[in-house]
Amino acid sequence: MSSFTDRTPLLNGIAASSGIAMAKAYRLVEPDLSFEKEMIEDIEKEIQRFQSAIGNAKKELEEIRDRAKKELGDDKAIIFDAHLLILSDPDLLNHIRDNIKTTKVNAEYALDNTTDMFITLFEQMDNEYMKERIADIRDVRKRVLSHLLGVKIVNPSMIMEEVIIVAEDLTPSDTAQLNRTFVKGFTTDIGGRTSHSAIMARSMEIPAIVGTKTATEVINTGDFVIVDGLKGEVLINPSQEMVMQYKRKLADFETRKEEWIKLMNEKTVTSDGHHVELAANIGTPKDLDRVVHNGSEAIGLYRTEFLYMGKDQLPSEEEQYQAYKEVLEGMNGKTVVVRTLDIGGDKELPYLNLPKEMNPFLGFRAIRLCLEEQGMFRTQLRALLRASTAGNLKIMFPMIATLEEFRQAKAVLEEEKQKLVSEGVSVSDCIEVGIMVEIPSTAILADQFAKEVDFFSIGTNDLIQYTIAADRMNERVSYLYQPCNPAILRLVKMVIDAAHREGKWAGMCGEMAGDETAIPLLLGLGLDEFSMSATSILKARSQILRLSKREMEGLVEKALQMSTTSEVIEAVAEATKK
Amino acid sequence: MSSFTDRTPLLNGIAASSGIAMAKAYRLVEPDLSFEKEMIEDIEKEIQRFQSAIGNAKKELEEIRDRAKKELGDDKAIIFDAHLLILSDPDLLNHIRDNIKTTKVNAEYALDNTTDMFITLFEQMDNEYMKERIADIRDVRKRVLSHLLGVKIVNPSMIMEEVIIVAEDLTPSDTAQLNRTFVKGFTTDIGGRTSHSAIMARSMEIPAIVGTKTATEVINTGDFVIVDGLKGEVLINPSQEMVMQYKRKLADFETRKEEWIKLMNEKTVTSDGHHVELAANIGTPKDLDRVVHNGSEAIGLYRTEFLYMGKDQLPSEEEQYQAYKEVLEGMNGKTVVVRTLDIGGDKELPYLNLPKEMNPFLGFRAIRLCLEEQGMFRTQLRALLRASTAGNLKIMFPMIATLEEFRQAKAVLEEEKQKLVSEGVSVSDCIEVGIMVEIPSTAILADQFAKEVDFFSIGTNDLIQYTIAADRMNERVSYLYQPCNPAILRLVKMVIDAAHREGKWAGMCGEMAGDETAIPLLLGLGLDEFSMSATSILKARSQILRLSKREMEGLVEKALQMSTTSEVIEAVAEATKK
Repeated sequence: MSSFTDRTPLLNGIAASSGIAMAKAYRLVEPDLSFEKEMIEDIEKEIQRFQSAIGNAKKELEEIRDRAKKELGDDKAIIFDAHLLILSDPDLLNHIRDNIKTTKVNAEYALDNTTDMFITLFEQMDNEYMKERIADIRDVRKRVLSHLLGVKIVNPSMIMEEVIIVAEDLTPSDTAQLNRTFVKGFTTDIGGRTSHSAIMARSMEIPAIVGTKTATEVINTGDFVIVDGLKGEVLINPSQEMVMQYKRKLADFETRKEEWIKLMNEKTVTSDGHHVELAANIGTPKDLDRVVHNGSEAIGLYRTEFLYMGKDQLPSEEEQYQAYKEVLEGMNGKTVVVRTLDIGGDKELPYLNLPKEMNPFLGFRAIRLCLEEQGMFRTQLRALLRASTAGNLKIMFPMIATLEEFRQAKAVLEEEKQKLVSEGVSVSDCIEVGIMVEIPSTAILADQFAKEVDFFSIGTNDLIQYTIAADRMNERVSYLYQPCNPAILRLVKMVIDAAHREGKWAGMCGEMAGDETAIPLLLGLGLDEFSMSATSILKARSQILRLSKREMEGLVEKALQMSTTSEVIEAVAEATKK
Repeated sequence: MSSFTDRTPLLNGIAASSGIAMAKAYRLVEPDLSFEKEMIEDIEKEIQRFQSAIGNAKKELEEIRDRAKKELGDDKAIIFDAHLLILSDPDLLNHIRDNIKTTKVNAEYALDNTTDMFITLFEQMDNEYMKERIADIRDVRKRVLSHLLGVKIVNPSMIMEEVIIVAEDLTPSDTAQLNRTFVKGFTTDIGGRTSHSAIMARSMEIPAIVGTKTATEVINTGDFVIVDGLKGEVLINPSQEMVMQYKRKLADFETRKEEWIKLMNEKTVTSDGHHVELAANIGTPKDLDRVVHNGSEAIGLYRTEFLYMGKDQLPSEEEQYQAYKEVLEGMNGKTVVVRTLDIGGDKELPYLNLPKEMNPFLGFRAIRLCLEEQGMFRTQLRALLRASTAGNLKIMFPMIATLEEFRQAKAVLEEEKQKLVSEGVSVSDCIEVGIMVEIPSTAILADQFAKEVDFFSIGTNDLIQYTIAADRMNERVSYLYQPCNPAILRLVKMVIDAAHREGKWAGMCGEMAGDETAIPLLLGLGLDEFSMSATSILKARSQILRLSKREMEGLVEKALQMSTTSEVIEAVAEATKK
């Protein structure tokens, strides 16, 4: 069942989210509408070219409008009427034609230039109605340009059938536009297991293959595509026989999933009786449902960034309080580890106006930002403290690099707690306060940190990229993103050993915690808590039930003395084969 | 002698290069020539405004031309005649005036738009003469814009008196334009000890204070300024009395320097008889002079990037061979450690067309690039191998993150060596092959590396920024760039201990090796070789002669168990005070 037994074109990539999906491909590619300013000779011909682009854009818009009316209703279609009106505006059209005539520029430039002038005019009027008109003009300009340049543009919100999305990469705003009912899976050119698109796929629970390098080159809209998230392969226009094979494979997968579901309420105990905790990573209270239905024993990472994103100002204390309370109550007394704001790096908040940085991953982010913008930080801490009586809250600070930072952050927390108490607000008395260990210096000094923090949670996504100096989003160096590198295992050991010597616990909330190859090593190292995508929990539990901690300790002892990642991976395969 | 005894305004910053300089300030600030497109009402007034900007620009250019003629000669002044011609071109001027009239835009926009059109036209002609005209038009546009906007622009190549340069930052291209005879020192808003501007200052041997945050806000061109590179202070318009004090301080400094010069031919031996090697970092064969005159015992880092920079193609094998040979012969049998190409990150080579990266410091650079672009790498290795018989060559690979990379790089070197030998070229048989340790994973696995490499050279500039996840160029997080952080000391210890266990040597070629506070700790850790700016060597030797290795071992043992950088710095001060 691979390219060797069949002539089906096949792409390899990173299985970002497991499962199998089959559907027609839909290319979601930002069109290249760039052009050069050119001086033209034949004015009449250029105006003709412009007229015909306008005509084609009109025809296309009418089709989209009619289809939208039928499938989505009149109110969704009205926007296209507005666009059609612009395309008939004599003022705009005359201006563009005059521009071509008098300055002898190409139609693309005249269109761009003239619409810019209209936009500037409208901006000066500064009212909401005109702002919408500006957005409309921009959309229309894009459409006419696409016809001038002979480039096709797509409209993802118009997807009305089951598809596999094919894209260079998927940004959060792309996914917001997708109609999730119809998106069965996706495949991208770039990205790794920890890219946004991959995390998105796991949270949508749809199969995805990222980092194929060439998906957008090789796959056309309309091709029939199989996304094999178990093997990391994308098959293009497979034979009928192949499709049948995959249907059987899908059925097998469903059977295994049914087996896992039986483990829903089981404890996670190794074959030699050692218990570990399997927890879930969540982004919003909406994820609670999935946490509960996948047998999670706790929430090991509540990423609070989503409260701050997709809006034009900071969330209020009350808004945050409600969200934290909802999660704590939803977990019914089980542990909820909340990470304070981890913004900056690849996660931007436009309304904070953070300066552009040359190396955002090594920049002013997370706790560094919070200790400087203390107003924002204190609001979050107050909301957390007020919610603390609703369940079992633990607070965790991200990107801690030095002990001073932890001491400062904890002091701010204590201050806010005292203020609340003196205001008569009740606050839990047993909130554990810990840190993410995602910076090498913190792992190396874990023995010093362990004296002051209540717990560690190892954030491997960042820890690995700093330790090996390789941006995990950069596919030219992503081969260096090696969770099982002996250097990483040694750092993880330092953290776990330091915690245990001081009677504290150590968890992990990076992607590594749910990785099939890493789990045996982490068990051997003595990790107490594994926090991962909710959808990975049952599979991980099924794996751990079959492993012996004692044996994994032997395995990891050898791995720590190995010199390369591939030796470690081989040793894991050897030690865990049945 | 500080702000407390006098009212002189004072700025604090990082002393990037020592010494004291006094002169008039010269602000080198890229002018803000941004403007908005605006629709205007009064056409006549706008054209008037345009005419008067043209008139002022002409007057200014005539003055510059006359001065350049007198001070620099006719051939340097001719460029300004060309600019004056453009300002009198009726075709250009009429076009801009028409543009204002017909489209009712502001003069800035009309100027920009029309000159763009001319540039586009000229670009289509595609010959060398027209390319120069395009550069002229751009310069003239900038000058006219500055008059329209009322912004002053500066011309650093016209500096004809002794000055202290005041700038936001100094890029390599800025410094290329400076007349070094007249630049006595400088001060910048941003940057740290390891920024380009700081390294440049040390190589020019002029005092510099970087990272003042506000120098360009506080200091005006013409202010009398003292740059105190010993204390890290900039004094603005000091009193006569203050100037006298500083003259005495400068004399003291000169006396100390004379003391150091007596150490020129001394060995570097601690008070209890332990010898270490003090080596120099160089960039080109031109630096040899300075190396010899500062009593260097070796070259610990020859950065080969300069051979590749400032040109439009790769350097030939022969060109490289000559440079390497010159350095090896110049050192007369003393060790020369050559680092293979370390490009990427903040060092770009335009002709390689490397893709823009989101986090260049965590990207595709140095050995990662060389192992992929093997042609370029092999040319360099052949040049090195051919030069190897001219002296004591050691080869070092940069940015090694995994053992596989070292093995691959060494295999390529062996292949080229065999090829040369079979061609009958003589190659030295005792070239040591080592690595830079600048990535945390490599320091952590140093015991494994030590079995295969001949030596380590710890590159602390990068090692620190990765270990603490803080871009050293980013002044918002530069407080985290902490050489004496206990985590860094532990990594350095891992590397040195690993080397010694295998009978290998360990050096350091980052800025830390020449740092007064770090030197006692590094001695205690057992570092074998300290490589630094040539101008720091005698000062370091004078310091080491007074220290006892045994005492420093006691100091570092305690420092390794400390939890913060400030504790360590305090302990060093305590242990080394007389």
